[in-house]
Amino acid sequence: MTSDIPRPPDHMSPEEFRRNGHAMIDWVANYLQTADDFPVFSQVEPGEVAAMIPDAASEAGEPFEALLRDLDDVVMPGITHWQSPNWFAYFPANTSPPSILAELASAGLGVQGMLWSTSPAATEIESKVLDWLVDMMELPQSWKSTGPGGGVIQMSASDSTHAVLVVARHRNRERGHAEDMVVYASTQAHSSVAKGCTVAGIGHVREIAVDDTWAMRPDALRKAVEADLADGLLPIAVVSVVGTTGTTAVDPVSGIADVASEHNLWHHVDAAYAGNAMVCEEFRHHIKGVDRVDSYTFNPHKWMMVNFDCNVLWVADRVPLIETLSVLPPYLVNKATESGAVIDYRDWHVPLGRRFRALKLWWVIRSYGISGIQALIRSHVVLAGSLADRIVSDDRFDLFAPHPFGLVCFTHRGGNDTTSALADALNNSGKVAVTPSTLDGTAYIRVVVGQARTTSHHVDELWNLIDALAPSVSR
Amino acid sequence: MTSDIPRPPDHMSPEEFRRNGHAMIDWVANYLQTADDFPVFSQVEPGEVAAMIPDAASEAGEPFEALLRDLDDVVMPGITHWQSPNWFAYFPANTSPPSILAELASAGLGVQGMLWSTSPAATEIESKVLDWLVDMMELPQSWKSTGPGGGVIQMSASDSTHAVLVVARHRNRERGHAEDMVVYASTQAHSSVAKGCTVAGIGHVREIAVDDTWAMRPDALRKAVEADLADGLLPIAVVSVVGTTGTTAVDPVSGIADVASEHNLWHHVDAAYAGNAMVCEEFRHHIKGVDRVDSYTFNPHKWMMVNFDCNVLWVADRVPLIETLSVLPPYLVNKATESGAVIDYRDWHVPLGRRFRALKLWWVIRSYGISGIQALIRSHVVLAGSLADRIVSDDRFDLFAPHPFGLVCFTHRGGNDTTSALADALNNSGKVAVTPSTLDGTAYIRVVVGQARTTSHHVDELWNLIDALAPSVSR
Repeated sequence: MTSDIPRPPDHMSPEEFRRNGHAMIDWVANYLQTADDFPVFSQVEPGEVAAMIPDAASEAGEPFEALLRDLDDVVMPGITHWQSPNWFAYFPANTSPPSILAELASAGLGVQGMLWSTSPAATEIESKVLDWLVDMMELPQSWKSTGPGGGVIQMSASDSTHAVLVVARHRNRERGHAEDMVVYASTQAHSSVAKGCTVAGIGHVREIAVDDTWAMRPDALRKAVEADLADGLLPIAVVSVVGTTGTTAVDPVSGIADVASEHNLWHHVDAAYAGNAMVCEEFRHHIKGVDRVDSYTFNPHKWMMVNFDCNVLWVADRVPLIETLSVLPPYLVNKATESGAVIDYRDWHVPLGRRFRALKLWWVIRSYGISGIQALIRSHVVLAGSLADRIVSDDRFDLFAPHPFGLVCFTHRGGNDTTSALADALNNSGKVAVTPSTLDGTAYIRVVVGQARTTSHHVDELWNLIDALAPSVSR
Repeated sequence: MTSDIPRPPDHMSPEEFRRNGHAMIDWVANYLQTADDFPVFSQVEPGEVAAMIPDAASEAGEPFEALLRDLDDVVMPGITHWQSPNWFAYFPANTSPPSILAELASAGLGVQGMLWSTSPAATEIESKVLDWLVDMMELPQSWKSTGPGGGVIQMSASDSTHAVLVVARHRNRERGHAEDMVVYASTQAHSSVAKGCTVAGIGHVREIAVDDTWAMRPDALRKAVEADLADGLLPIAVVSVVGTTGTTAVDPVSGIADVASEHNLWHHVDAAYAGNAMVCEEFRHHIKGVDRVDSYTFNPHKWMMVNFDCNVLWVADRVPLIETLSVLPPYLVNKATESGAVIDYRDWHVPLGRRFRALKLWWVIRSYGISGIQALIRSHVVLAGSLADRIVSDDRFDLFAPHPFGLVCFTHRGGNDTTSALADALNNSGKVAVTPSTLDGTAYIRVVVGQARTTSHHVDELWNLIDALAPSVSR
């Protein structure tokens, strides 16, 4: 070979990587200790971060020190601190030290687990750890990889819900047009159901009425299905939500399973947030009937200290999923696949490529143990209860909904404007993040106790802030 | 607050994270230096990794040392080494030191960039760096975030192709049923086109004939569209591939754009692998006509040293994409979104949540500079050319297709069985990884020079191995 072959600059040798890597670890360790000190919501104005970045890439490379400097100067002002223990907004998106290190290992290995053969460890650890979770949460044994079902890690619950809606549509394709198909979910279901139907080209989403706990009414579901059948439409699927985004309402899985069974609907359970609580026995009554559903999804990246992205989808029967999503071009043919003895996860979702995400789930479960994860969930639920108690005993506030898990919803008796102003004042303080929302015309405040480092101290401080910022009610 | 609140074990304090993190960095640094020493394809049998893992999670947590030990003992035997410089299989999935460190930083920050407001830096850096790439690759200026179009990072080209097929279906929904819609791509297009159509519920995928370079024939496309129109079907989209997976054939974008324009088809370009080469001026003739397409995707995670996942999708007009994919529930309403002054990337793809993936793309471009990335691409293309020269001048082999980028396809003159046996022998040696494939009944071997650390030394060794393992041809 000649020596005139252009060579890329030998940027960051393994030895330089080692030195820069130690600096990066120190930076992250420092962040884990100081995340509490930043305003929780980023305070920048639109365009402010972009304005600090040159308009064009540079011809020459830059040293790592420049990147680290800009991490502090350019990136940090534009960060909203999901990892602050004062994070009470949306649902949490927890990370944890072992999860961070697993992401580092995964990025270093740089494998692509589309097929079993392209890294058997990525596939086999994924199947094994999802089997662990079945036992940890007392889910149906048939969902294990050794049974007719199976689990797969996807990017988000939206992806999983979309995927099963596609399967439901696909298996009914001989019955009529997608535009005439109907999917059912409560008025409180996550936006991913409507979005999933739009993306899948399913014509109708019926919002089913809820009871006074915001949970779906199976009788209303049955009536809606019957009405659609009478109109010549094609009911294909129902989504039960265990822990709605608005108020963590719990749809009655068993009652919905009755209707699903009567009408041969694919029954999907979206337990994105609350599914994590099933690691504790005392919450499992919320998913009674789960042995009769077709698919179930939850997000370890919400409340199990596994950093985003790590969503789990289980199906009771893997055949319709794989039949819908499998394509095998000649360049992916290989002996292991042909043997039928392995799982090729590319057939379980829309994308072909996949990162080695099972590593972080495995490391987090091993690091904390079942008891550690249970303790995390229980501490948050107790703390949420203590906050709810203080809200109930204060004559300025009303609880807006039951709080079966870590979410507390409340209103100010001064009405919508006062409630919204209180939410804004809390967020503008920079000291906490909460989520203002509305339901049936009522403004309320969502407070989720769920960040991995949140303790009674942070909840006390949150309450003190609410107490200080909320006006009294004139009588 | 009382002290009886259950507390999770305080596993891995920031100080322990610092210590364990340094050990993890050293492990990765060591791997970067020794990846060459492992058999490239994992040698385990199905079930071998799983058998080393207990059947149930443990109640108590384990120390980090146990995880690191199992990384060597359980994980490594099941790793297929995509980061080996002897990786010549599939297309590459490169990582690089700055990309690994950016993943670490991103995991540490643990932000979720679904909305601008949930971390403005994640959104603004993404837009800015994708604008950089438009200039770096001389793509249409209108694709910049400041124009009518825009770019977004997705997980994989499969996701991007699926998303634009959904948009094409959605914007034609008043014209007829999805089952009657037709999407066109060459016989050589990636499986993601057929899979995307299945997932999107689009009824027909037409495989268009190719010329003797395996590139789509626009005249055959036009005839197919006209035939479908005559049959009362609804042509909605065409996918041009720049660099097919089989042989890196290049569809004539400009000629296909003529047909797309005549028949109002959404024109999507899949340049997943070869798109990276457009950072070098001399390859841009391959995308002549790109200023007339509707969408374009490429994967920095293939050939730009940004680790998986990092796919880029650009659209010439962002309105139909956002109109199809936007859903705004009350808990996501916020002032920045309402102002219209910001991008909320959740409206640009199927999932809601998203990691801060732009950080690694930014860090890699800054670390290597435009010149460094150009040098990488050029060195690989020159090395591929040198391998092709040796194949051509050896009477045992024939080149199977042109090699415009880093992929060389060849056959053994002994026929299909001999070619397949040679591919197996190469892979079974453990010294290299190549991909056996077939096209129109001919078995051939795909060799991609594209791993970031591959140099002339590794290509020489590959050639020596081919030379040693290939039988001579009887005459």
